[in-house]
Amino acid sequence: MHFGRHISGQFNVELESIRTNVLTMGGLVEQQLSFAMQALHKDDVELARKVVRDDHKVNAMEVSIDDACTRIIAKRQPTAKDLRLIMAIIKTITDLERIGDVATKIAYMAIESPSSTERHFQVSLEPLCRQAISMLHQVLDAFARMDVDAAAELHKMDDKLDAEYEAVIRQLMTYMMEDPKHIPNILQVMWSARAIERVGDRCQNICEYIIYFVKGKDVRHMTEQGIDDIIK
Amino acid sequence: MHFGRHISGQFNVELESIRTNVLTMGGLVEQQLSFAMQALHKDDVELARKVVRDDHKVNAMEVSIDDACTRIIAKRQPTAKDLRLIMAIIKTITDLERIGDVATKIAYMAIESPSSTERHFQVSLEPLCRQAISMLHQVLDAFARMDVDAAAELHKMDDKLDAEYEAVIRQLMTYMMEDPKHIPNILQVMWSARAIERVGDRCQNICEYIIYFVKGKDVRHMTEQGIDDIIK
Repeated sequence: MHFGRHISGQFNVELESIRTNVLTMGGLVEQQLSFAMQALHKDDVELARKVVRDDHKVNAMEVSIDDACTRIIAKRQPTAKDLRLIMAIIKTITDLERIGDVATKIAYMAIESPSSTERHFQVSLEPLCRQAISMLHQVLDAFARMDVDAAAELHKMDDKLDAEYEAVIRQLMTYMMEDPKHIPNILQVMWSARAIERVGDRCQNICEYIIYFVKGKDVRHMTEQGIDDIIK
Repeated sequence: MHFGRHISGQFNVELESIRTNVLTMGGLVEQQLSFAMQALHKDDVELARKVVRDDHKVNAMEVSIDDACTRIIAKRQPTAKDLRLIMAIIKTITDLERIGDVATKIAYMAIESPSSTERHFQVSLEPLCRQAISMLHQVLDAFARMDVDAAAELHKMDDKLDAEYEAVIRQLMTYMMEDPKHIPNILQVMWSARAIERVGDRCQNICEYIIYFVKGKDVRHMTEQGIDDIIK
């Protein structure tokens, strides 16, 4: 991807390297979320422990990419589109890191829930989590291609995740009312559902940064209609 | 506050103006949180509506400060401490905006909960919310003075907020088990408790940015001991 013509070819190399690192970080976060879900589903405590252990890798990538971005600003004094790319990256990695935290949270649940009753409730999370992973995958893909149309489409997809989340919460609430002794266990599952729903919000944020990079407009806090008008 | 000696006195003026805007935004967010809590406590639907109405002011400030930061980078090509200040500000306003969202969430609860039973449960939130507002106030104060020692102390204060949060959740859980028909109402209060607890995490983030600005070290994901070693 060419970001513009730079006097220094080295600048291009540096930008490309940061962008590649963001995609690597995104891939790792997606894998963490996917492993966490597998661990919960298959009751695989070893895999869950691996997710917890690997969270520091996500954190380290956030710190190192952030540092690379600050260095490139100081050294290369980027303007216009280059600067927007760096700003978009700085914000994207914050959201990716938080999605990584969601994976760890699910992994802890897989480690700490030995009873079959709890596992029964956790099953409700599967479709929600699958949908969140799919959304993240597509958002990372849009980011790799800086595809503004895909970003605008994916931005709307969060509504579906919200609807699925509401359904999960309603179901879990029914279980609670049927048998109050399970309330503490079900609450744990609800917190995780909430965290997974937030993955959708974070994906939406990344879509907004893609639009900001390509179109030069900050679309945060805008309606879907407002965003559509900018994309056109 | 002098950030360094610049060839352009105008640069100093611009930096100072951005910094002032961050403090204004912080003051507004603190007020929103405080009004939301008052609205809930005194059952003041009008005040709650004002909080909801004013959320767009917080959002607009985030967008405008972010834009000013990008412009100053492009125009002034800051390095070292000036650049760190701008980076710290870009991250701080994201956290402030999210705290603003928590205020709106509490305000909606005040608008939507007419029954006295619900209000009974909401009372549990008061000490938690008061503590969160106090933490935010002190963090903004540390930010205004770029006081790294205060930031390190406040970073530890989040543990107290977490403990208060755990107590609130336990109490609400007991209510749930005693009378399952209140589960949906109590869940609403729990979600808000969770959101308020997150205010503490966001305040911790801002403390980390203050330390980053003053010490030039990224202390995210570090232990309290690690942070103390850097402050010394």
